[in-house]
Amino acid sequence: MSGATELTLGDLGERGIQERVLRPRYGALEGFGDDSAFLAAVETGCELVATTDSCPTPVVNILAEPDLFHAGWLLATINLSDLAAAGAEPLGLVVNYTLPKTTTVAEFERLLDGVDACCREHRTKVAGGDIRDGATMQLTATAIGRCVPGSRLRRSGAQEGDRLLLVGSPGYLWAAALVKTGRASLPEALADELWRRACRPDAQLKAGRILAAGGLARAAMDVSDGLFATVRTLCEANGLGATMTGEFELDAIVAEVARQSGLHPFELAQTWGDWGLVVATRAEDAGLVVKTLWGEGVPAQEIGTMTAGPALTLGADGPAWEGTAQERFSASSWHGGEAATLVAAVLGHH
Amino acid sequence: MSGATELTLGDLGERGIQERVLRPRYGALEGFGDDSAFLAAVETGCELVATTDSCPTPVVNILAEPDLFHAGWLLATINLSDLAAAGAEPLGLVVNYTLPKTTTVAEFERLLDGVDACCREHRTKVAGGDIRDGATMQLTATAIGRCVPGSRLRRSGAQEGDRLLLVGSPGYLWAAALVKTGRASLPEALADELWRRACRPDAQLKAGRILAAGGLARAAMDVSDGLFATVRTLCEANGLGATMTGEFELDAIVAEVARQSGLHPFELAQTWGDWGLVVATRAEDAGLVVKTLWGEGVPAQEIGTMTAGPALTLGADGPAWEGTAQERFSASSWHGGEAATLVAAVLGHH
Repeated sequence: MSGATELTLGDLGERGIQERVLRPRYGALEGFGDDSAFLAAVETGCELVATTDSCPTPVVNILAEPDLFHAGWLLATINLSDLAAAGAEPLGLVVNYTLPKTTTVAEFERLLDGVDACCREHRTKVAGGDIRDGATMQLTATAIGRCVPGSRLRRSGAQEGDRLLLVGSPGYLWAAALVKTGRASLPEALADELWRRACRPDAQLKAGRILAAGGLARAAMDVSDGLFATVRTLCEANGLGATMTGEFELDAIVAEVARQSGLHPFELAQTWGDWGLVVATRAEDAGLVVKTLWGEGVPAQEIGTMTAGPALTLGADGPAWEGTAQERFSASSWHGGEAATLVAAVLGHH
Repeated sequence: MSGATELTLGDLGERGIQERVLRPRYGALEGFGDDSAFLAAVETGCELVATTDSCPTPVVNILAEPDLFHAGWLLATINLSDLAAAGAEPLGLVVNYTLPKTTTVAEFERLLDGVDACCREHRTKVAGGDIRDGATMQLTATAIGRCVPGSRLRRSGAQEGDRLLLVGSPGYLWAAALVKTGRASLPEALADELWRRACRPDAQLKAGRILAAGGLARAAMDVSDGLFATVRTLCEANGLGATMTGEFELDAIVAEVARQSGLHPFELAQTWGDWGLVVATRAEDAGLVVKTLWGEGVPAQEIGTMTAGPALTLGADGPAWEGTAQERFSASSWHGGEAATLVAAVLGHH
């Protein structure tokens, strides 16, 4: 080892990592060190749900410094976002990290900081996990949650005529990418705020619980691969199509970046990385649902109507909606790349 | 693609995999295709536990054909074994597979077959999961379980004088390795039986539940890294030491391999890969616990006594017990290798 600040996980070994890194951080958890992590004592009836996702390389790490904090935050967000789509309350996260032996302890701490910070934000915790060494870093987590019996949200359940809502504030990540690659520029304070939001996407857990508890949603799904892929999947799950308004009122910072970049607001609203929810509600409830969410501090807008389908169109009798969708195990499966190439691939050349 | 039998995951793409492989197998599950998998409806109070583990390359794949069935079975076993050590009843598994695009559909089906077969054996199921493509295969799962309130088994809770029991039948995996590398030979039928057991290690879920329900264990841990590492960790968690008997009555097939290989039975009992449990019980209960387990068809033997410690010895006032322990993030961290090298590393040259 070359000095205290460069101490690596390989220097510590598994037992050293356990005692010097993990115990100081997680040792007070009930069940710390046991074969199985203690998640929660459940006293009343509930439906349990679970979801697992691996963390891709965060786009913000490609745009700027490769700080593992962002990977940690993202890992927690993508898993909690799936619980949000079910209307579930998180009971905890179980993490599984494969890390090279050359990972420094400082880098590892940043990863843990990111996961823990995101969990705290949502009043949940890392309940347990496993680490092992391997040639390539791989970060995986499983989130476990509980739903009030009968309230669990699913992808199916929508009907023709239902309104589609987008819950959350889209466009922050790719607006930040446009600024970083010089296609827009903002005063420093606004650029900082944009970057902060891009680095800390927000799983819509509160919205999911409100929608589930109030019976306000007939179907829901989180936006993990972009709006087009999400709406298409939601439509397929219900044997329906959709007519999109093609309009979206972006947050002011994001709207300014769209304007400078020559992008229509809906183009930026279609991007991924902000972990919103797409929700189908009864037409007659749509206004109330949007108002209810805003009243709780959660942004939501109507973006379309579900149709007999199967077509996805922009406006009634309008042209086909041709969004981009990344698909795993295909040529579009995304594994990182240069910032400028990325922006071009996601937003096109304008 | 070069023909139906050589169809790869990259040929199908994510949506093709979902429709042609996963839906036929898992489509009847409640919540199939949703963002979060449905685990279970819980009606009475319980304590929830969760555990996650990645699957190493199965030793049986190094000894013989690289059939992904074995990796699938092992992945389920190592996770269910942690639930066994908690005395928990499994509610389900959530799986996370990273697979190269070149993985054939037939190989993928074998992986799923292995996981599903192991789950069926323990009356549990794959509730959901995630797949993505990557350069290197990585198989991770999370098992979620429930315990009767107050009965959960932990690593801590043992006291001086407690007896240590080994639950399960150790030595099958490494006896099979000795046969495959020519250090022992058996009649074909026995060799087949040995190999079958080596390929299908058995998580001790039934034993865990019996011990937990009856309040028969004060501490428990599964043998994932060998008996020495397990007993050492269990002792450290309780601030104790242990005096081991140094004896073990192996199953007849395994004993015969030990004899031919010039190994003392305890040497083969110390190996890993069979997923037994080490349990601390009150001295006065030890006989009854062993009898109770045998009565339920679960093998168990007394292997030592917990002492004021911290020494681990063979026999009272005997020599130090110096077992081998693989430690992750260290030079002994194991990532596969040649069969003969492996056997030498685990069992030494005799």
